[in-house]
Amino acid sequence: WWRAVRGVLLDISGVLYDSGGDGGGTPIAGSAEAVRRIKAAGLKLRFCTNETQATREEFVKKLQGLGFDISVAEVTAPAPAACRILKERGLRPHLLVHNDLVPEFAELDKANPNCVVIGDAAENFTYANLNEAFRVLIGMEKPVLISLGRGRYYKETDGLKLDVGAYMKALEYACDVEAEVVGKPAKPFFESALAEMGVPPEQAVMIGDDIVNDVGGAQQCGMRAVQVRTGKYRPCDENHPHVKPDAYVNDLAEAVDILLQQL
Amino acid sequence: WWRAVRGVLLDISGVLYDSGGDGGGTPIAGSAEAVRRIKAAGLKLRFCTNETQATREEFVKKLQGLGFDISVAEVTAPAPAACRILKERGLRPHLLVHNDLVPEFAELDKANPNCVVIGDAAENFTYANLNEAFRVLIGMEKPVLISLGRGRYYKETDGLKLDVGAYMKALEYACDVEAEVVGKPAKPFFESALAEMGVPPEQAVMIGDDIVNDVGGAQQCGMRAVQVRTGKYRPCDENHPHVKPDAYVNDLAEAVDILLQQL
Repeated sequence: WWRAVRGVLLDISGVLYDSGGDGGGTPIAGSAEAVRRIKAAGLKLRFCTNETQATREEFVKKLQGLGFDISVAEVTAPAPAACRILKERGLRPHLLVHNDLVPEFAELDKANPNCVVIGDAAENFTYANLNEAFRVLIGMEKPVLISLGRGRYYKETDGLKLDVGAYMKALEYACDVEAEVVGKPAKPFFESALAEMGVPPEQAVMIGDDIVNDVGGAQQCGMRAVQVRTGKYRPCDENHPHVKPDAYVNDLAEAVDILLQQL
Repeated sequence: WWRAVRGVLLDISGVLYDSGGDGGGTPIAGSAEAVRRIKAAGLKLRFCTNETQATREEFVKKLQGLGFDISVAEVTAPAPAACRILKERGLRPHLLVHNDLVPEFAELDKANPNCVVIGDAAENFTYANLNEAFRVLIGMEKPVLISLGRGRYYKETDGLKLDVGAYMKALEYACDVEAEVVGKPAKPFFESALAEMGVPPEQAVMIGDDIVNDVGGAQQCGMRAVQVRTGKYRPCDENHPHVKPDAYVNDLAEAVDILLQQL
């Protein structure tokens, strides 16, 4: 199947670099070169991330500083996707997100909120902020909770951290509602990335470190998906009860080696 | 069925008094007198609470200060029940609980933990503490999570607060485990309260304000259960899809009026 590939979707954290809790990070060996080789081969490329700790502008700048050939226009991320949904439905969000993500929602009316948007708020996941988001939700006749991803946890250089999905579950349980998830593994999110590349799913491959959100999500859209053994990869992922990648590779560089040999 | 009653189980918060976020509280009119009347009538009495923001000694003292005839020996609470389980199974807990509950676990070895115990930690539900409890759990070959209750939320004088159940769900999701719940509505918890009274379930009545944890839990043990219209009671409880109390009363005083008339 590798020969059919015309478009590549890349997860960012854990595939291009390992992020640090301080906002910094370390490139994964060979990844910056791998991105350049994909582009040089004339393949379509799209970065598909659940990053919600910063605006796209900010983290693209960080990645450029780490040596990656990447621009804001090449990135599919949950916050802009959520903004489109909020505008379409006339929703006014109460935000429980990272301070650095707030500018993505600048254009929206946030007075008298009629929904809650939760992202990876990190240090903003305080007891007070969680109670406040809960009170906004429980005060609605029909609570609307929009979550920028459903990840369980992720790894930073100072250790594992609970991801937005855990806090989403807490609010879901407390209010007896189901969140609407924007971002991986939601199907519309992958589909918009494919549309932006102009490549049908059977000619696309997702390369990621998350067995459920990257691999499982992409496969559900009819794409091939490869898991890297970097980032949050754990050996027990290879025994996952529901999801089986189309291939494993040690890192992005190896995936690109295989891909370019087949072309 | 009221005539068969020989033993009474009383929930505390929302039945005897309304708690304040500051550790204080206000007695519910007629409740202190109602407790004395139950005892004077020669009925067995047991207080059955999911309170995990303080040791039993502390909150019994507070209740005595509010005019209630109550002693530590009459209280069934989750922390001592959890301690028994931990000892039986040789478990060494990592505690994510309220500071004031920590002394209940004083006798247990807490070095090199092999389980996590979560209670209503309130202000201790910080981002750092949640990440720490998560890391302890995910580091175990088979994570063991013990939760002192599964409440969704509760009301304090300064507003609604997320209860332990919401944070339990967050950790369950992140670690893909199911918590073992100690406290209401767990069957063994009600059964130990019945055993302490020496009364079979068909001769006992639970009086509480929580439709699921008090009423539903007690009924599942074969007891009768009455919901008071005080505390967290909401009119929509009367349309609960699964749980129907054996009776509604306006408050504890009214329940005791009915009970004593039947004897």
